[in-house]
Amino acid sequence: MTIYDRSNIGMMMDLYELTMANGYFTQEQQACRVAFDVFYRRNPDGGGFAIFAGLEQILEYLEGLHFSAEDVEYLRSLNLFSADFLDYLRDFRFTGDVYAFPEGTVMYPEEPILTVVADLVQAQIIETELLAQVNHQSLVATKAQRVVRAAAGRPVSDFGARRAHNNDAAIYGARACCIGGVSGTATVSAGQAFDIPVSGTMAHSWVMYYGDELTAFRRFAEVYPDNCILLVDTYDVLRSGVPNAIKVFSEMRDAGIESKSFGIRLDSGDLAYLSREARAMLDAAGFDRAKIVVSNSLDEYTITSILDQGGRIDAFGVGERMITARSEPVFGAVYKLCAVAGPDGAFQPRIKISETVAKITNPGLKKVYRVYNADGKAVADLITGWEGIDPDAVRTGYRFVDPERPWKKREFRDCTAKELQKHVLANGRRTGPAATVRDIADYVRRQLKDEIWDEEQRFEYPHKHYIDMSPEYYAMKMRMLEESHG
Amino acid sequence: MTIYDRSNIGMMMDLYELTMANGYFTQEQQACRVAFDVFYRRNPDGGGFAIFAGLEQILEYLEGLHFSAEDVEYLRSLNLFSADFLDYLRDFRFTGDVYAFPEGTVMYPEEPILTVVADLVQAQIIETELLAQVNHQSLVATKAQRVVRAAAGRPVSDFGARRAHNNDAAIYGARACCIGGVSGTATVSAGQAFDIPVSGTMAHSWVMYYGDELTAFRRFAEVYPDNCILLVDTYDVLRSGVPNAIKVFSEMRDAGIESKSFGIRLDSGDLAYLSREARAMLDAAGFDRAKIVVSNSLDEYTITSILDQGGRIDAFGVGERMITARSEPVFGAVYKLCAVAGPDGAFQPRIKISETVAKITNPGLKKVYRVYNADGKAVADLITGWEGIDPDAVRTGYRFVDPERPWKKREFRDCTAKELQKHVLANGRRTGPAATVRDIADYVRRQLKDEIWDEEQRFEYPHKHYIDMSPEYYAMKMRMLEESHG
Repeated sequence: MTIYDRSNIGMMMDLYELTMANGYFTQEQQACRVAFDVFYRRNPDGGGFAIFAGLEQILEYLEGLHFSAEDVEYLRSLNLFSADFLDYLRDFRFTGDVYAFPEGTVMYPEEPILTVVADLVQAQIIETELLAQVNHQSLVATKAQRVVRAAAGRPVSDFGARRAHNNDAAIYGARACCIGGVSGTATVSAGQAFDIPVSGTMAHSWVMYYGDELTAFRRFAEVYPDNCILLVDTYDVLRSGVPNAIKVFSEMRDAGIESKSFGIRLDSGDLAYLSREARAMLDAAGFDRAKIVVSNSLDEYTITSILDQGGRIDAFGVGERMITARSEPVFGAVYKLCAVAGPDGAFQPRIKISETVAKITNPGLKKVYRVYNADGKAVADLITGWEGIDPDAVRTGYRFVDPERPWKKREFRDCTAKELQKHVLANGRRTGPAATVRDIADYVRRQLKDEIWDEEQRFEYPHKHYIDMSPEYYAMKMRMLEESHG
Repeated sequence: MTIYDRSNIGMMMDLYELTMANGYFTQEQQACRVAFDVFYRRNPDGGGFAIFAGLEQILEYLEGLHFSAEDVEYLRSLNLFSADFLDYLRDFRFTGDVYAFPEGTVMYPEEPILTVVADLVQAQIIETELLAQVNHQSLVATKAQRVVRAAAGRPVSDFGARRAHNNDAAIYGARACCIGGVSGTATVSAGQAFDIPVSGTMAHSWVMYYGDELTAFRRFAEVYPDNCILLVDTYDVLRSGVPNAIKVFSEMRDAGIESKSFGIRLDSGDLAYLSREARAMLDAAGFDRAKIVVSNSLDEYTITSILDQGGRIDAFGVGERMITARSEPVFGAVYKLCAVAGPDGAFQPRIKISETVAKITNPGLKKVYRVYNADGKAVADLITGWEGIDPDAVRTGYRFVDPERPWKKREFRDCTAKELQKHVLANGRRTGPAATVRDIADYVRRQLKDEIWDEEQRFEYPHKHYIDMSPEYYAMKMRMLEESHG
């Protein structure tokens, strides 16, 4: 396999998915219907929420999943699997159902963001790819949204491809950045694949090639008069780069060239200080329309701090720290069995107890509602059994349990509730058209503007969103915990 | 583009590569011969070295690089490029030369690990993909080697796919883990693509599906008597998991089944304590051959600490912290212009000065030698101009400059020197066969055993490898620095 034909994602799975699947198959359990939940346990970077991303790729994967003759021969060569199971894989198609939050939904720990209901073997072998998509794209979308928040209205571009964890991380990472609110990417293949804006100007090599900075800037202005962002830090920003840029802008002005977009990019040194000084120099020369773009190891923390110190910045190019989510590069979503159909077809809940309290799961098939107050703000999420609630109840009065404070008697009143999981895949086929990246990004923006409390959007000790339970669901979970220790 | 046909890596580049290339092209500079170096500036995690990985994928990329009609149409739609340049891309082939360290070479900051000599436009547009491969794979190979070192001879497996930054990160990450010394991976597609060993046993879902742990273990033992590693932490490790595992192992023994490999896996709780207790229970039951495999957020630090506390562990499964290099998930290799051919064809050096001292580059075409003492230990690396050195000189006496202590007079004597860069691509074609992952991993192991000082392999404040320069090269660099400030 060369890097040009590496797309064999049908085989992107942990071997144990197949050893277990073969085990179930051998014991004729494969057709038993089960349910698995995807959920995560902690918001990255101590944030108040995360952004759900990666769903479109999951649906594409499930609709296309199959194993080629070569795949099956490779598996045969491992001497682990029965001949019947290998035959079964040859004709494999995913025919299960998926219920999921819409992509871009603001999500919180412990709630089922995606539920698979399928035959046991089918549900088992899709685990790794589902988690890889959710974990990677939610990680980067959540990080990018933090960076965008810090930039406080200034555009942010993704410059991260070269430090991404290989090609997919660059391409799907750019997609996730856009979902998080980034206005464009430098990564051409991502722009092409997802119809997202691409941008890019000049590297140090351009200046070094011409040797002389002024010549390099002039040559660039000749080719790109309308997108003339000059990189000014190859030799010395304030003594050489900015004065040379001003010289070229003046020459353009003298020649009567009205540039649509021109300015400078700073890529090293102290960006707060240099941007203030450069702004003053550009303004003094009459170029108050010249933009100042900065890059160099930026993230939400450095951006906040540079802006606090009066940095004069019009746009940010953010690379390695966003595309890798450097401050916390692992998103820990898991895929856990929550129910198994009995002989009568009815689902019986399953629970995982653990040495670690945080690893105890929420058993059974569930529904998740987001509950809004009269102002449209999301006051809590509510987990119930599969039977759900009467949507009118939260208006007239609905008693719920806060599982962290179960002794408190509390109720929703004058509220509305929206069910978060949608039925997105039925018998292995999509129930609706694919969402575009722009639509998903708009959805993220609207939620954060209209629905999610500012108090949850703080970087430092944000408000913790309430994840409440229906009394019936809470009682069922407690009963299972007690029984398992009986 | 769906996730099944995302392999368009020809377009995996930052847009500025193309805007610059179009600029060079427009100014008829495209055929000027230039040289770019790939180098990095700092070892991750405060380590003493890094492992060079990703070269095979770079060579595949350069041999295959092309643009489809759709690619060219997409670029045309951006309204940034001249028609001539777009025509040029349609017939594009990379015809340059690459000189590189063999994949798997122990490498140090500031030395050119890979040098591209090519026409300007060709050399420019390959930057992003070259860096993405070197950065991702060197990052993970270096991290994996640290994990393997901590495991002190116990096998380590890669369990990271679900937390990798998308599919390529899992697949090429598994490849890089193997280069770093990991004995196998759970990722099936990586095993298939790179002929590396795959392994895998059982997830919690197996136990939860059967509901009753003992039944689940018995069913697994029926299907996999010869690879019977039972996951014992679904309910309670010491009160349920290990006793049930012992019961099943006893039943197998009573039935006369001689398992090739059996034991338990611990995936939560305190692994030092639980592994000691489990070992005692297994031994007391006569199962001293039973293996104890552990997983759960392991890295070189937790492994060191668990082993220090007497953890009784036979093998490690390492996931998210290795596949993402969580402690430091960015490898910062860069690609910098170092020389431009003049009208006579002779290369003139180029230097990048910066606000940041660490960002000043090493100008010109260079050679890098590893210098060994009489015991075969690598005492230093030596950078010279393209003319190189007389290989006999380091035996009879060779005066060099330590650029961090240029006032010291020092020389190599009774040494041997090996040139590190090989000519791996000539006129766009490989000069030799591809290396296998096994060969590369062997090469890493041999260097660390025979050539690299233990003092450089410490985790805490390792010895800093000397990167020396020939007197002529050092003088040339100093002259360029002075001139640029003249």
